[in-house]
Amino acid sequence: MRAAKQPIEIWFDFSSPYSYLASERIDELAAKYDRRGKWRPIMLGAAFKASGLPLLLTVPLKGEYSKRDIERSARFLGISYKFPSKFPLASLAAARGYYWLHGQDCNRARVFAHAVFRAYWVDDRDISELPVVLDIVAGLGIDRDAFTAAIATPEIKDRLKQETDAAIAKGMFGAPYFMVDGEPFWGADRLPQIEKWLATGGF
Amino acid sequence: MRAAKQPIEIWFDFSSPYSYLASERIDELAAKYDRRGKWRPIMLGAAFKASGLPLLLTVPLKGEYSKRDIERSARFLGISYKFPSKFPLASLAAARGYYWLHGQDCNRARVFAHAVFRAYWVDDRDISELPVVLDIVAGLGIDRDAFTAAIATPEIKDRLKQETDAAIAKGMFGAPYFMVDGEPFWGADRLPQIEKWLATGGF
Repeated sequence: MRAAKQPIEIWFDFSSPYSYLASERIDELAAKYDRRGKWRPIMLGAAFKASGLPLLLTVPLKGEYSKRDIERSARFLGISYKFPSKFPLASLAAARGYYWLHGQDCNRARVFAHAVFRAYWVDDRDISELPVVLDIVAGLGIDRDAFTAAIATPEIKDRLKQETDAAIAKGMFGAPYFMVDGEPFWGADRLPQIEKWLATGGF
Repeated sequence: MRAAKQPIEIWFDFSSPYSYLASERIDELAAKYDRRGKWRPIMLGAAFKASGLPLLLTVPLKGEYSKRDIERSARFLGISYKFPSKFPLASLAAARGYYWLHGQDCNRARVFAHAVFRAYWVDDRDISELPVVLDIVAGLGIDRDAFTAAIATPEIKDRLKQETDAAIAKGMFGAPYFMVDGEPFWGADRLPQIEKWLATGGF
């Protein structure tokens, strides 16, 4: 068992813009170093409660800067991005659905996650609305009714809570939050440091 | 008059660790693109008041992560760094002295700023103590008494306040904060974006 075989963990919220940016790059970065990404949607609001931090975009001065920084960071990384009409929003249905899909087929869950991120951050679709999420689901050939039923079960609801609590227990206070062989990284802007960590085994 | 001739403005606080990291790299980056850096120490506490933000390292979870992130970022950039025994601290004397020196010889002020940053962030010297700042001053061949008298004048005290207010008026909410041809950047981790901005004229 070599540490080098461990997956790169990434905790994210579908409603987090920097999470979206990271989601578009983390898997190719992982693959370059013979790793895989382990994706874990969480409820970022709960993390903010744990750290006492306000929602970034509501902070005076910093919020305005951040909106500009996110757009510029997207261009810097070459990623399509459009600030959505509705922000912030709750992404519970998508996050719960992710875990249900993941229990069946982790690759399909990954495809679903990308589709949800892009629906919100490129196509300005309101992913807090269940019908919007179900359209994405149907587009992937997944049964709407099965999805709807699954995300209403206590098991799936608890799973999302447990994953969020587990992330906070690992120090997560914002998203995206990564763990690479025990080393925590926060933010899409830490991808270069993650790459160096993977390339050198830690520095 | 071409915009390309404008200096890169950098606002910083000597007590800010990410400011120190940026201070070790910004001038060589500027020079690479035929620019110069315009250094402006400010009182970061006043900026935090304007944005309502807490001191980073005091935030639950995020503070602990950040201490680790700063050390890792220093290694990533190849910069000597040691978390000081006393943190946070007030760097008023050094910031005021910078403006006095700058009025006489901007290059000497730059050398002084580097010396103050390194005294705190490499050699663990308490730069909130005037004798420590005066030792740095004397080491650069500057008269201790003249420095001491200068930083007590209303003109110099006002200058630091005015520079801080001016920075906040330009959107500064944390340090280091940069302005490159009208584009704001925050954080030592934005140096790659600043470089791309300089190389391409904006992206």
